Amino acid sequence: MSNNIFWHNSAVSNKHREELNHHKSACLWFTGLSGSGKSTLANEVDKIFYSKKIHSYILDGDNIRQGLNKDLGFSPSDREENIRRIGETAKLFVDAGLIVLTAFISPYRKDRDFVRGLFDHNKFIEIYVRCDIKTCESRDPKKLYEKARKGLIDNFTGVNAPYEEPENPELIIDNGNDSDILKNAQLVVEYLHSLKLI
Amino acid sequence: MSNNIFWHNSAVSNKHREELNHHKSACLWFTGLSGSGKSTLANEVDKIFYSKKIHSYILDGDNIRQGLNKDLGFSPSDREENIRRIGETAKLFVDAGLIVLTAFISPYRKDRDFVRGLFDHNKFIEIYVRCDIKTCESRDPKKLYEKARKGLIDNFTGVNAPYEEPENPELIIDNGNDSDILKNAQLVVEYLHSLKLI
Repeated sequence: MSNNIFWHNSAVSNKHREELNHHKSACLWFTGLSGSGKSTLANEVDKIFYSKKIHSYILDGDNIRQGLNKDLGFSPSDREENIRRIGETAKLFVDAGLIVLTAFISPYRKDRDFVRGLFDHNKFIEIYVRCDIKTCESRDPKKLYEKARKGLIDNFTGVNAPYEEPENPELIIDNGNDSDILKNAQLVVEYLHSLKLI
Repeated sequence: MSNNIFWHNSAVSNKHREELNHHKSACLWFTGLSGSGKSTLANEVDKIFYSKKIHSYILDGDNIRQGLNKDLGFSPSDREENIRRIGETAKLFVDAGLIVLTAFISPYRKDRDFVRGLFDHNKFIEIYVRCDIKTCESRDPKKLYEKARKGLIDNFTGVNAPYEEPENPELIIDNGNDSDILKNAQLVVEYLHSLKLI
């Protein structure tokens, strides 16, 4: 009877939602330069998750900058608010029992550390997608580096705004031209296995 | 082979995520006065969902006002931004394949209609939790009405700020003192069944 009363008063918890999903929840925070392959890598990881019936979701520029954060630009203070909101949203997804993957440049160490502080230990996994800027610039699918070099974009990370490398990320993925994106995605999945998150 | 290429290039879609969850995704938007029982009702619906292995999540004051929207107050413009962000966040949860329940007063019709416009048809279900203000005020668990009547709270809905009733909500739940919260929760679940969302 006391259990029933407890259940009646309590809400469905994060633990309940993890049990329903048959895996733990966590935030995989991909950070790196524009063109480093963060979104591509996150998408490959997400596809592996789906094939394993892992409940996941990606937050990236496509769904955040057009929606939740469309009122924000790229000044340092707007970037800070951008990352704060993404971090808070990621926290909700983790609370909901999902593995949420975020793919944003997130160039400032203090902003990433702020987000880390929102999560319990082992729930926040910073993944540095490392790629030298020449390679990133040679990819340049949206011609953003080209525009930034011409002075047409202010505050472009790596050109006229800083990128602060992670000092102690949980994982570093070298994602240069000689790298295999599928193997790199597998490395991320294996790391989560090693933590017994999945 | 062409399927493989398609799959390689495409991301996991909303349809894929719904298939994994074995139900459709949607936003259940509970609106009503403070004390009308929105959160209590949403929590009861959420518990029924959990018992049926439906993947769901609640956005409410507890997890939104302390996090994503902690920079916002209760002025009309802050309320508008509050509801905008909640709507955009709810949209992400729906895209992720979940049934998301939101429990906010959301007093302005135009703000609720803005949120409705973010969703595809049949993905947004406005639920008016109807309860007369005397009953709401007699509940007053946080003594907010009492404070507002004393002039200690500005912009308190129903006292010194308006509540605009929904004109065409998908569902009206009468949630006065003679109502049974569990039966009302079941009405919401039955409505979703009738739409074949679950």
